[in-house]
Amino acid sequence: MKFSPLFWPVQLKGRNIYILDETALPGKVTYLKARNYQEACRAIKDMKTRAVGQVILVMYAFLLEARKKTDLKKVAEAMNSTRPTLSFKMLTDMVLNWARQGVNLEKSILGLLEMLKTKRVQQAEEASKLITDKDVILTHCNVSGLMPLMGDFCRKQNKHISFFVTETRPYLQGARLTAWELKQGGLQVTLITDSMAAYVMSLGKVNKVIVGADHLAQNGDIANKVGTYQLAVLARHFRIPFFVLCPPASHAKSGRDIKIEIRPDKEMLEYQGVRLAPKGVKGYYPAFDITPNGLITKHIYLNIGR
Amino acid sequence: MKFSPLFWPVQLKGRNIYILDETALPGKVTYLKARNYQEACRAIKDMKTRAVGQVILVMYAFLLEARKKTDLKKVAEAMNSTRPTLSFKMLTDMVLNWARQGVNLEKSILGLLEMLKTKRVQQAEEASKLITDKDVILTHCNVSGLMPLMGDFCRKQNKHISFFVTETRPYLQGARLTAWELKQGGLQVTLITDSMAAYVMSLGKVNKVIVGADHLAQNGDIANKVGTYQLAVLARHFRIPFFVLCPPASHAKSGRDIKIEIRPDKEMLEYQGVRLAPKGVKGYYPAFDITPNGLITKHIYLNIGR
Repeated sequence: MKFSPLFWPVQLKGRNIYILDETALPGKVTYLKARNYQEACRAIKDMKTRAVGQVILVMYAFLLEARKKTDLKKVAEAMNSTRPTLSFKMLTDMVLNWARQGVNLEKSILGLLEMLKTKRVQQAEEASKLITDKDVILTHCNVSGLMPLMGDFCRKQNKHISFFVTETRPYLQGARLTAWELKQGGLQVTLITDSMAAYVMSLGKVNKVIVGADHLAQNGDIANKVGTYQLAVLARHFRIPFFVLCPPASHAKSGRDIKIEIRPDKEMLEYQGVRLAPKGVKGYYPAFDITPNGLITKHIYLNIGR
Repeated sequence: MKFSPLFWPVQLKGRNIYILDETALPGKVTYLKARNYQEACRAIKDMKTRAVGQVILVMYAFLLEARKKTDLKKVAEAMNSTRPTLSFKMLTDMVLNWARQGVNLEKSILGLLEMLKTKRVQQAEEASKLITDKDVILTHCNVSGLMPLMGDFCRKQNKHISFFVTETRPYLQGARLTAWELKQGGLQVTLITDSMAAYVMSLGKVNKVIVGADHLAQNGDIANKVGTYQLAVLARHFRIPFFVLCPPASHAKSGRDIKIEIRPDKEMLEYQGVRLAPKGVKGYYPAFDITPNGLITKHIYLNIGR
C-alpha cells in the first residue's frame, strides 16, 4: 500500500506536532511545528492543514495539553472557534468526556487515531468497489490521500482508471494537492478549471464524480469545498453518479444547521502576491457549500467507534 | 451615454490599427499597434482582443489591405484560420463579395462598423428592458462594454441593479475586464470564483443571468467562454432566467457544427509566470463551450443589415 503524504499529514514527535504545510505544496514538502494548542489553532485558521489533518491536529493538541495539565475546556473552546463549518465539537466533547470519566487520555487519543487510520483505508477500499474498469473520475478539491489510495485498490483489482481534477479556486487544492498526489501515485490525471466541468461531462469524458466532505449532517446533506454543490447539480443533469467520501456525521440535523465560513476576499482577489482583480472590487468567498442529500447517489461512510 | 473602453476596443488612425490590450487590463490601459493583417491575426491568436474587438479588427485590417491592393482572399484565409470557434467567415465572405461587386470597400466597411456600433447600443437598451428594479445579475467573462451600458440604461430607467461576476478562469476576463468596467461605470459589483455560482444562486443572491456569445448557430445554440454552459444548467436548476446577448447568427445549423478551440494547457497551468500546478501534470483547456438553445430563456439578438 502506497500512501500520499496527505493521507496522514500531521505527526506527533516528542513534545512537538509536525504539520504538512499544504499551502506550500506542491513546490515544497515542508512541515510546520506546533508546540501548543494556540499554534495548532493558528495552523487551522491559516488553512495550513485541512480536513482529516485538522482532526489529527486537534487530537494531538489535546494529547500535548493533557500532558501539561492544561485546562482542556479552554483547549476545546479554542478549537471549536477556529473554522465554523467544521464539526470539531463532537471530537472535543468526546475528549472532555473522557477526561471527566478519568480514562487514560493519551491511550484513548492514540487509539482513536489508529482506528481513524484503519477506517480511512477501508473507506478507500469501499470506494474502489464502486469503480469499474476504464472509469474516468472527476474530483474536486482534495480528499486527503483517499483518491490515490482508491486508485491503488483499483490497480490491485485490475481496473484501469483515470482522473479529471478541477483546479478548485481560490486555493487551488485540486491543482496543488490532488493532481500532485495522484501523479505521485502513478495515476493518470488531467486538470481542468472549475468552469469546465459541464462541458467535460457533456462530452462524455467523465462517468463518475467522487468528492470528499468536511461535514456530514444527520439527513445526509454535506458541506464540502465550495464548488461541490454545482458539480452535484451538473452530475444530476448529465446523469453521472455522484459519490461522497464522508466524515462521521455531526449533530447537525440538515445542511441548514451547518454554518458556512466566509473567508477574507483578499484570498481570492490575490494569488501569491499577484493581484487578480482591480483594486477596490470586492469579492464574496464562502469557503464551503451545502450539497443536499437528494443530489448524492451514494455516501461512503466513515464510522468510527460504531 | 458613458462607454466602457471595451465597448469599442479597436481604433483606426491613419495607417495603423490600435488594439486595446485586454491581457494588460486592469493594470494598464495600453493599445497595441497593428500595421497589417499579419499583425492583426497575431493579436487575435494571442487573445489581445476578443469578441467584438476581433470583428472590428478584422474589418479595419481589410480596409488597410484594400488600400494597399493586397489580395483580399489571402487576408480572408488568414483571418479565418486564427481561432476556430469564432465565425469570421460570414464577415470575410461579405467583404470578398463587396470586392467582387466593385463597391467602395472603405465606405462599406466604415458604414458596417458604424451600424454595428448603433446596433450594439440598441442591444444594451433591449437588455435593460428585461431588467427590473433591484435585480442582481450574474454574468460571466466579458461582453465588451454591454454590461455597463445596460447598467447605464437601467439607471436612466430608475432601476437600481447590481452584479455578481465570475472571475472566469483561466484568463480571468470576469475579474480583469467586467468587474473593472462595471466599477468604472459606477455599478455595484461582487466578484466570485467560477465554483461559487450554484451556492450564490441557492442563497437567492442573484435573480438573472446574462452572458454574451461568441457564436450563435441557426437553431439558437450558442458558443461562449467555457463555463457558460454550466451557468445555464445551474440557472435552469434554480429557475433563474438565462439571457444571452448574441452576435449575428452564423451558417452553423447547431452547436454541433461549431468547432471548439482547444488552447495550450500552459495558459491554465500558469498565471503571470507563476506555476499553479505541479510540473508534468497536463491540463485540458477548451476555450469555449456550447450552451443548447433549450437552456436559454431569451436571446437578445444583434441583427445587422436586416
